[in-house]
Amino acid sequence: EPLEIAEALFPPVARPLAGVRVLLTAGPTREPLDPVRFLGNRSSGRMGFALAEALEALGARVTLIAGPTALAAPRVTEQVEVETALEMYEAVMVRAADCHIFVATAAVADYRPETPAATKIKKDAESLTLHLVRNPDILAAVAALSQPPFTVGFAAETDHVEAYARDKLLRKGLDMIAANRVGGDQGGFERPENALTVLWRDGRREFPLMDKTRLARALAQLIAERYQGRHAASS
Amino acid sequence: EPLEIAEALFPPVARPLAGVRVLLTAGPTREPLDPVRFLGNRSSGRMGFALAEALEALGARVTLIAGPTALAAPRVTEQVEVETALEMYEAVMVRAADCHIFVATAAVADYRPETPAATKIKKDAESLTLHLVRNPDILAAVAALSQPPFTVGFAAETDHVEAYARDKLLRKGLDMIAANRVGGDQGGFERPENALTVLWRDGRREFPLMDKTRLARALAQLIAERYQGRHAASS
Repeated sequence: EPLEIAEALFPPVARPLAGVRVLLTAGPTREPLDPVRFLGNRSSGRMGFALAEALEALGARVTLIAGPTALAAPRVTEQVEVETALEMYEAVMVRAADCHIFVATAAVADYRPETPAATKIKKDAESLTLHLVRNPDILAAVAALSQPPFTVGFAAETDHVEAYARDKLLRKGLDMIAANRVGGDQGGFERPENALTVLWRDGRREFPLMDKTRLARALAQLIAERYQGRHAASS
Repeated sequence: EPLEIAEALFPPVARPLAGVRVLLTAGPTREPLDPVRFLGNRSSGRMGFALAEALEALGARVTLIAGPTALAAPRVTEQVEVETALEMYEAVMVRAADCHIFVATAAVADYRPETPAATKIKKDAESLTLHLVRNPDILAAVAALSQPPFTVGFAAETDHVEAYARDKLLRKGLDMIAANRVGGDQGGFERPENALTVLWRDGRREFPLMDKTRLARALAQLIAERYQGRHAASS
């Protein structure tokens, strides 16, 4: 029968990422000013944790590098806890050469205090000046490896979302980027819902506002498609 | 019988704070740098939430002013959510004249960015200088009211814990202060256990390392004792 022939030729691929190693960062990082104070950001880690589970459900072996979150551990192969951007950088770089797909959902602090104080800063002064220095760019460092994995970035912006995201895709040499607006009413940080515009060199896909778990499943499917597409094209 | 006479003279006081209005701050505050980044601190809010419940269990009507935490709402009369130190200051000051006891467990940010950015700061520069200004001192402002409530402060320090705490007690005119060491192995921030040294003008009590819920009950009892002692002395 035609249907049986079709199914034999194209079996339903339930686990399109079987055997694929994924490295995924999630959550915020914290940059200590002293033992009690830090520079942080509003990433809940929810989108990253959901995406890690969705990729694992497609058959991938996911190593999650997680900044501090209030979330329960997701069902993934391995989870590594970090706090600062430098810790996340190191945790990623020692594993990056060994993964097929790298997904950077973490909201990594761009800057850290130049010299964190060893004891609590006393609040004697009326004002205080903090000197910050740049953290390494984890996503760019992975994409710049001589044999980079399939690299997926995220861009959370308050304005000019798609233009910034396309610039980031090209400038850092990414394979895909998922862009979302933050600080508005379109979901994002600290919200259970999110909307994404996903861009690649010669294409795009829109995901309307939906529950992060559902969105993560749809995005995981798209990552699997694009990853296999790149492999098919280059083999 | 002697026992019956004793019980008639000194009935077991199960709810020593019945009819007493308590205002209690808990958790960290967050001071925005821009819509996604903030200055934060490691307070989990756990000790404050536990103390709010323990005071309510002693009969008090507790209004909890809570910074951002990952905790479930405690069983108290009222809970008000705030984010920044300025918001917490305002939420406290409009209620302070109407409470009998004020307990400041919150880890309020001493400084805030002078001018938070309305849109996400772009990370073009190799370094960045942040200008911070002092936040109002909520605890000192309440203690300095013309008819202040019974005022209990907390001091979380990394070193010279008791000396700093006694200085704070006297300088701000508090009725009690609970001091604990942070950043060591003595519990405190982000830990389920804590140890406290509680000081007042002419006394002190040590609470060894224990579960925060148990510690909160013991501290609530001590607050009730000292509050009633002050009333007995001044009436």
